[in-house]
Amino acid sequence: MTLPSAAPSQQSGGVARVRPRDPRNQPTLALVGATGAVGSVMCELLSARMNVWGQIRLIASSRSVGRTVVCRGEPTVVVSLTPEVFDGVDVAMFDVPDEVSEHWAPVAVGRGAIVIDNSGAFRMDHDVPMVVPEINPEAARNRPKGIVANADCTTMAMIMAVAPLHREYGLRELVVASYQAVSGAGQGGVDTLRRQLDKVGDDAALGSRTGNVRRAVGDDLGPFPAPVALNVVPWSGTVADGGWSSDELRLRDETRKILGLPDLKVSATCVRVPVVTGHSVAVHAVFASEVDAAEAQDILRQAPGVVLVDDPAAGEFPMPIDAVGTDPTWVGRIRRAVDDPRALAFFVTGDNLRKGAALNTAQIGELLATELAAR
Amino acid sequence: MTLPSAAPSQQSGGVARVRPRDPRNQPTLALVGATGAVGSVMCELLSARMNVWGQIRLIASSRSVGRTVVCRGEPTVVVSLTPEVFDGVDVAMFDVPDEVSEHWAPVAVGRGAIVIDNSGAFRMDHDVPMVVPEINPEAARNRPKGIVANADCTTMAMIMAVAPLHREYGLRELVVASYQAVSGAGQGGVDTLRRQLDKVGDDAALGSRTGNVRRAVGDDLGPFPAPVALNVVPWSGTVADGGWSSDELRLRDETRKILGLPDLKVSATCVRVPVVTGHSVAVHAVFASEVDAAEAQDILRQAPGVVLVDDPAAGEFPMPIDAVGTDPTWVGRIRRAVDDPRALAFFVTGDNLRKGAALNTAQIGELLATELAAR
Ligand SMILES: NC(=O)c1ccc[n+]([C@@H]2O[C@H](COP(=O)([O-])OP(=O)(O)OC[C@H]3O[C@@H](n4cnc5c(N)ncnc54)[C@H](OP(=O)(O)O)[C@@H]3O)[C@@H](O)[C@H]2O)c1
Ligand SMILES: NC(=O)c1ccc[n+]([C@@H]2O[C@H](COP(=O)([O-])OP(=O)(O)OC[C@H]3O[C@@H](n4cnc5c(N)ncnc54)[C@H](OP(=O)(O)O)[C@@H]3O)[C@@H](O)[C@H]2O)c1
Repeated sequence: MTLPSAAPSQQSGGVARVRPRDPRNQPTLALVGATGAVGSVMCELLSARMNVWGQIRLIASSRSVGRTVVCRGEPTVVVSLTPEVFDGVDVAMFDVPDEVSEHWAPVAVGRGAIVIDNSGAFRMDHDVPMVVPEINPEAARNRPKGIVANADCTTMAMIMAVAPLHREYGLRELVVASYQAVSGAGQGGVDTLRRQLDKVGDDAALGSRTGNVRRAVGDDLGPFPAPVALNVVPWSGTVADGGWSSDELRLRDETRKILGLPDLKVSATCVRVPVVTGHSVAVHAVFASEVDAAEAQDILRQAPGVVLVDDPAAGEFPMPIDAVGTDPTWVGRIRRAVDDPRALAFFVTGDNLRKGAALNTAQIGELLATELAAR
Repeated sequence: MTLPSAAPSQQSGGVARVRPRDPRNQPTLALVGATGAVGSVMCELLSARMNVWGQIRLIASSRSVGRTVVCRGEPTVVVSLTPEVFDGVDVAMFDVPDEVSEHWAPVAVGRGAIVIDNSGAFRMDHDVPMVVPEINPEAARNRPKGIVANADCTTMAMIMAVAPLHREYGLRELVVASYQAVSGAGQGGVDTLRRQLDKVGDDAALGSRTGNVRRAVGDDLGPFPAPVALNVVPWSGTVADGGWSSDELRLRDETRKILGLPDLKVSATCVRVPVVTGHSVAVHAVFASEVDAAEAQDILRQAPGVVLVDDPAAGEFPMPIDAVGTDPTWVGRIRRAVDDPRALAFFVTGDNLRKGAALNTAQIGELLATELAAR
């Protein structure tokens, strides 16, 4: 197996190819939240996709205004979030907290921009399509509110593998458990794990069985409800009905929306693990028809945006330390349930900041750029 | 919630109480593998259970012979594994690799000892009962080979929560994903994670998104197929049929055997995580009859050897950093499937070295000691 490296969208299959155009005529892009975990990766990706956008405006909070960020090789000064900043903007990508998107996305639309939003603010809005270009690119054209939503990063990793199998076998039910990286909670999550690891590393007793991680970490929990170093935390999101977390229900709702399966059964457990970047999901998928593991491997080998890594004897299975920094979703451990010929088990890992956020946004942006150019 | 601390077996419910007896008349115990991860915890536990055993012989490989280990407060010299060491032994606990148990357990039986084996060597042998004292204590009395097996530590964590629910609702199917600690692979696993964390901690770039864990760790993988620091490894055990790992099939087979449900559907994904001690399992359990989450909480609150930690709003759910060093199995995140009134989802964490190994062995030992005393 050769390790797939970050690939331009042309190789990510199923995504509209952007025709080279007169640079003076290229659309103007606004990037809101350019200094965050997702926004920083977006700046990296835009640098490898230089033929798409004309002017790019980098926007963040007042904390960052005046900072210089390198984008497409050019030092660019971060400007503040005002209504006027969207004047003349064709596409605005929002990589900011829910409440900032909720308020500012309609403002950007009012100034004439099409918004691609990475937050959770609009995902379940019936008038906002949720688009994964490899799966439902057509949905991006119908956007009554002028907003297109990106799925959550855990949903994204899972659905890239589930959708091609659904097309073949007809999905009926999903039981999934996640292994979510700390960068899924933003830059603050990464900084927290780093600080906690330094603290538990200093505590010699923690090498042993009985060392007390809570004592070493104290109340330095960052965005998490418990220490994440040397631990797994079976909670992410807010408290929802019936003991479910908002992230668990979101995974269900988003999967149903993207696949157009409103009655799909989904039971998810969302768990945070001490990994920097790369969300993994253990999937048990039940289909309408009988499945075959070798055939499922073939389907996934050919699926756009997916790389098959499935040779346990050779130590090959999807893992965050390999998937980080790459474009595709890594899928492996594909096996048919011993007790159910209609069920497949598999393991998926995707870079939550790339395909789980910035890359998918860039791909949607390119769909829109193509649409704009054709006008 | 008060954090449950290591409790003597009398509090672990469902376990036979050992009557105080004439100390000269107490059974002789051999502890084979006294220097390992499980054996060390066994020495600790025996120190808190002083009224059970007469003489205790500590045994390990030639590497450890002559070392002094403190057991029940007394420095005890480790002796070597020979046939003669079992002469006069009533009960022999084996905490050694499979192949050592396979050879030496029958030798111990031949010398008159009853063997309790923690390895995988005899678990699926029809003539060897697999006993969890809270669940099937009666099975320990029927041991045609003179050997009683302990379940695998992942099975153990899960089954402590599943068995009481099965009794109420009738178990039909399990879909589970594990979060297994490195000490499940013995002391070598713990040492490996510690070394790897030191290495990635030294590499400043690893605080960032793109840091290369493989580069920092090199080929210092210890007992694992890939780096485990800052990673999750979706593989444990050996390659079995159909893409399954031996650990995944074992979880199925052991669950069927302990519950006496030979046709139970079980689909498991076993994953190693960078946690020192404490195996967790995300469980989706389907039952014959409808379930109720509040009722399930009550059942688990009353179940022997189980502690219910289920208040997400207050940050209470089962986690390895809390469960480590305690006797009970921690269960929480109990919720009824939104789409299936017969399915419950929950999360379980147990100390793999205690209830997952040494504690259960000690409990079986006490069942046998009671039986011997009644002769
Ligand atoms: N991380 C992931 O894996 C992931 C995946 C999918 C979706 N998302 C979603 O993407 C969004 C961004 O996540 P992130 O992980 O990048 O978070 P982050 O690292 O915390 O970054 C937040 C960004 O938003 C900016 N911001 C915050 N408040 C603002 C305000 N009032 N006005 C203007 N800018 C403001 C911040 O600017 P300053 O630097 O100036 O504070 C920063 O650029 C969130 O909605 C998140 O749920 C994240
Ligand atoms: N770790 C867990 O969570 C867990 C849970 C359930 C079951 N188990 C099972 O329990 C057993 C022990 O596991 P562990 O984690 O404690 O392993 P470990 O830390 O590697 O310890 C192995 C022990 O076996 C001894 N040993 C090895 N080869 C021997 C030989 N030829 N003769 C005599 N003694 C020998 C070692 O002695 P030296 O120190 O002298 O080498 C050491 O005491 C394994 O079968 C394992 O699968 C482990």
